[in-house]
Amino acid sequence: MLYLGIDLGGTNIAIGLVDDKGKLISKDSIPTNKDRDYTEIVKDMADLSIYIIKRNSYELKDIKSIGIGCPGTIDSEKGIVIYSNNIKFNNVPIRSEMQKYIDLPVFIENDANCAALAESVSGAAKGTTNSVTITLGTGIGSGVIIDNKIYSGFNNAASELGHTTLILGGKECTCGRGGCWEAYASATALIRATQDALRENSNSVINKMIKGDMEKIDAKIPFDAAKQGDKIGSMLIDKYIEYLSAGLTNVINAFQPEVLVIGGGVCNQGEYLLEPVNKLVKQNMFCKEVRQTEIKVAKLGNDAGIVGAAMLGK
Amino acid sequence: MLYLGIDLGGTNIAIGLVDDKGKLISKDSIPTNKDRDYTEIVKDMADLSIYIIKRNSYELKDIKSIGIGCPGTIDSEKGIVIYSNNIKFNNVPIRSEMQKYIDLPVFIENDANCAALAESVSGAAKGTTNSVTITLGTGIGSGVIIDNKIYSGFNNAASELGHTTLILGGKECTCGRGGCWEAYASATALIRATQDALRENSNSVINKMIKGDMEKIDAKIPFDAAKQGDKIGSMLIDKYIEYLSAGLTNVINAFQPEVLVIGGGVCNQGEYLLEPVNKLVKQNMFCKEVRQTEIKVAKLGNDAGIVGAAMLGK
Repeated sequence: MLYLGIDLGGTNIAIGLVDDKGKLISKDSIPTNKDRDYTEIVKDMADLSIYIIKRNSYELKDIKSIGIGCPGTIDSEKGIVIYSNNIKFNNVPIRSEMQKYIDLPVFIENDANCAALAESVSGAAKGTTNSVTITLGTGIGSGVIIDNKIYSGFNNAASELGHTTLILGGKECTCGRGGCWEAYASATALIRATQDALRENSNSVINKMIKGDMEKIDAKIPFDAAKQGDKIGSMLIDKYIEYLSAGLTNVINAFQPEVLVIGGGVCNQGEYLLEPVNKLVKQNMFCKEVRQTEIKVAKLGNDAGIVGAAMLGK
Repeated sequence: MLYLGIDLGGTNIAIGLVDDKGKLISKDSIPTNKDRDYTEIVKDMADLSIYIIKRNSYELKDIKSIGIGCPGTIDSEKGIVIYSNNIKFNNVPIRSEMQKYIDLPVFIENDANCAALAESVSGAAKGTTNSVTITLGTGIGSGVIIDNKIYSGFNNAASELGHTTLILGGKECTCGRGGCWEAYASATALIRATQDALRENSNSVINKMIKGDMEKIDAKIPFDAAKQGDKIGSMLIDKYIEYLSAGLTNVINAFQPEVLVIGGGVCNQGEYLLEPVNKLVKQNMFCKEVRQTEIKVAKLGNDAGIVGAAMLGK
């Protein structure tokens, strides 16, 4: 049996066919054009779904269910997107709209939860029953898997781990609160810190890298600078690793997952990031006498959204 | 059927008979005398258990199981106290030792987890499937109930919510890390903050209350001072409520429990504490569009340890 997974993002709609082991068989994507009415967006989702099924010589009867991963607050039971800032959805009955075109069970979940489910089924946390996946991007996405299921609290809004405090009253966070982990350890936070550091002190190799154009700073640049021995780059990365590790320590003290998966472009740094992170986490974690959480880099990359959405129906 | 619950603390061993609804039928306690060998402590536990059963005209066959709640790190599967700082236990096979005297199933869990289970079965979170219980005492104890069961991670060490950061690098915590929630919002933290404030500025009604003896400061005193309009008292309580609320907001953003139970002597302040806490939490929580967690004061008080331990076997 196959599963269809839809990763509905602010920029693209990515859809894929996934087998029952969480393996992606075929995928495609189209632009979301997010300012349209939701009925048009969902019609596009349905059309592309049917196209992918046919292109792979399958029929609807070969598909067990459709899963949709979407940013924002979701009511999984009712199949409604309660609120999504990214795609301007407000109480959108996405399940019933989708079923106007395709008569299959439709599941819907927050996209970060989908990514966590994907890593748990066929990614870096494969084989575990309890895991947490953290995605370091524009914000910090997070999903918690307990007993092989997404944990989402009594109201489907749980595991917003990016919005737990690192430094109460500190840097302003998108959520309106001051000092959330996201405001210090997302990729955006690293980019902002780099821009701020250059404004204060322009004597850095980073200035040459970006040819003076602050807009060219991405999360890789301070890492590159640090590797070249640049003082500002090293300071930025040391601080970033301290913030990232502190939040990961919090996650471990709270959840003690068997595997803690970290994803997002920053994690392409591999051992350069993991080694000092592991050292700091081990040093600061509460419970040192027991078997310890393993921190691993995400395996499924951008496909995690599709795979996790598909696995909602498993 | 009845259940026997044992709350093994650093000062006392409290034991009770509990029915299958989580109602405490009879209890008694003896001093722990914690510096003794564990074999002596467990023998006392067994003797008092048998005494309580007989005193209530029951026999061993009326008891389904024995549960033991113990501070520290527990291996529930193996029935071992891996490490407890409070009672100096180190790899103590408490289940097998107990079964030398009483031939019943023996369950063992961390005491904060037991308190959470008790509040969930017959206390402030009765009727919910997901709840979190926070106890504000010497430290911050916490237990998480998911699907009516204690959540303790893959290694039985989860839900150390007192050891998540409020202000990274801030006040020193007993765990060795700087800035944990416990270092700001435990009863001890409030007492220390009061002592520090008086050292800086002795012009407070608190000085009269304690007759100049800093050792007389308990967590109630700054509340009493604040209620009398004392400037230092009000400042202390405002700050304490800010810290407490920030950590509770973190718990909600992470777990979204249906009920978040808070216990410990500080909670005797009732609405005086709950009202501003609720206001701050609502203001700062991430997800405002969904049904919201209810914050309630613990109901079972000191009996929570016994009741929760007993309910381990249910």
